[in-house]
Amino acid sequence: MPKIQRDSEDGGSDKDARKRVAEVLDGAQKAIEGATAGTSVAERLALAAKSSELLSSVWTLPPAQRMMFHPGDRLVDVPADDTPGFPGGKGEGQRFIDLSSGEISRFMGLMYANGVKGSHRRLLIILQGMDASGKGGIVRHVFRQGDPMGIHYHGFGAPSEEELRHDFLWRIKRELPRDGWVAVFDRSHYEDIVMPRVYGTQPESVWRERYDVVNDFERSLVTSGCSVIKIFLTISRDFQKGRFLDRLDDPTKRWKFDVSDLDARDRWDDYMAAWQDVFEQTSTTYAPWYVVPADKRWYSRAVVSELLRTTFTTMNLTWPPLSCDEDEARSRLSA
Amino acid sequence: MPKIQRDSEDGGSDKDARKRVAEVLDGAQKAIEGATAGTSVAERLALAAKSSELLSSVWTLPPAQRMMFHPGDRLVDVPADDTPGFPGGKGEGQRFIDLSSGEISRFMGLMYANGVKGSHRRLLIILQGMDASGKGGIVRHVFRQGDPMGIHYHGFGAPSEEELRHDFLWRIKRELPRDGWVAVFDRSHYEDIVMPRVYGTQPESVWRERYDVVNDFERSLVTSGCSVIKIFLTISRDFQKGRFLDRLDDPTKRWKFDVSDLDARDRWDDYMAAWQDVFEQTSTTYAPWYVVPADKRWYSRAVVSELLRTTFTTMNLTWPPLSCDEDEARSRLSA
Repeated sequence: MPKIQRDSEDGGSDKDARKRVAEVLDGAQKAIEGATAGTSVAERLALAAKSSELLSSVWTLPPAQRMMFHPGDRLVDVPADDTPGFPGGKGEGQRFIDLSSGEISRFMGLMYANGVKGSHRRLLIILQGMDASGKGGIVRHVFRQGDPMGIHYHGFGAPSEEELRHDFLWRIKRELPRDGWVAVFDRSHYEDIVMPRVYGTQPESVWRERYDVVNDFERSLVTSGCSVIKIFLTISRDFQKGRFLDRLDDPTKRWKFDVSDLDARDRWDDYMAAWQDVFEQTSTTYAPWYVVPADKRWYSRAVVSELLRTTFTTMNLTWPPLSCDEDEARSRLSA
Repeated sequence: MPKIQRDSEDGGSDKDARKRVAEVLDGAQKAIEGATAGTSVAERLALAAKSSELLSSVWTLPPAQRMMFHPGDRLVDVPADDTPGFPGGKGEGQRFIDLSSGEISRFMGLMYANGVKGSHRRLLIILQGMDASGKGGIVRHVFRQGDPMGIHYHGFGAPSEEELRHDFLWRIKRELPRDGWVAVFDRSHYEDIVMPRVYGTQPESVWRERYDVVNDFERSLVTSGCSVIKIFLTISRDFQKGRFLDRLDDPTKRWKFDVSDLDARDRWDDYMAAWQDVFEQTSTTYAPWYVVPADKRWYSRAVVSELLRTTFTTMNLTWPPLSCDEDEARSRLSA
């Protein structure tokens, strides 16, 4: 993850680059709007491929490549306020998210239809990050045009008494995506490695053996048709302070603030060390980690949107055929 | 449910009425857009109350009153292509849904926040109707601006082997909304009364005793803080034929078509009789049925949106206070 220093507030890209991004987004929008009710399925597919390609071409380096954790990468070296690979500013970023969310919605519809017809393709997104890193907001923005039919969100808090009576994956398995669905985990089984380590609530032997358990678990998910995208939103400690103050100041945000958030903040460095180890032990070829700079909300949302769209693209989904005899169906309808 | 005959395609309202609706919607939109980041919470509340009132004032008779099933009402007498109570046409209807979905999204955020802080308020929407009555599309449109965080959709198909080994409410209870959440059931426990009756797969004594079981179940939901909205989307048999032909013609819709849909179509009158009984036996003061004309999709969506918004309004939700000492939190943050 090479570092690029920028200076201006919204990403610091120059005017020409932003203009180029805007033009590409115009092209993508035109392709998206070109698919109307009257357009044939073949034409629609061609337009979708075009808009998809244009949206991807905005990035100077695909986030999937840029953000993927590689051995030797160090979490604390990632500049949280950087916007690598996206040559536009906040405005272009938000427009990108808008267009991309439409594409994601289309892909979700396709995957759902296939799920109804027996396909096991499904998708799990795992969101991790310190408090106020924007996990909740990402869900809302990336799935802005999504349909509740086909998406399942679940936040994992401290385990309940019942959950503690089972192995740590028990509550995770209950929330996995059904065939054709997307599940979004706000925190996940990784909390059961990081928390006991940071707070010393369980011996090292307990949480350390979970690396292997988790890797096996995720491999079995992937081989059974479930794509797994693991995202860590990285913010600076200063940025978090600002967001916490926002939550205290704004009566509509106070419910998000919990005093335990300050305990976690006090152990910032312990958390970073624990996550560094998680990436080293569990970033696999089948379920890699992506470490995403998130001090600029619009940027992390654009990245997650692109990661998700790219994953869908590689699935090569098509509309399922009719599951019965067409002539018979038509004649029964006319009877 | 008195009948009003209209003639034009989109609802048949006259020009003046439509103009009035457009003006009211302009006012609602102005109030909604008036709440920006800089607006105080008190002002935001006042603006929200105003937009909410304006949106409701569009209706000449509130859908909650108009569509609620009353003893003596007959399902087969409801004109499925009518648009009672809404003096606008398709354009105004769609604009209404847009504005209303923003309000619903705001209410959902409020209820979710309260759920996090220990409130048991939650909401269950039950959607029933013949195939192609628009149950799926309603979800997408009514929650157009919704956040996956806080909404749970579940479709109930034919029971699985595992589900059949439990009582009929077992699978229902697993999908109920958590505190602060909205759950949308696409079909529900009512299928376990209607299906065995129509197809004769279980003796009358079995499905008939379920009326009481269901009423008790729903009463316990409501008394524990879960509002229950039960909606039956009624379409004409001719309208269904058109939608089925659409599904056969359009390659992106073929996955929705199943030959068993034609079996249900063949027993149309039996279904109507079964549902008529369901309404008579299970439309209670705490969980009434609403019978909604649905040949015009925009109209049924507007009605469901209004029913939902009205329910939220009566909850009188407010933002939860801080759950810790503010001064202490601030001084710890500054340390």
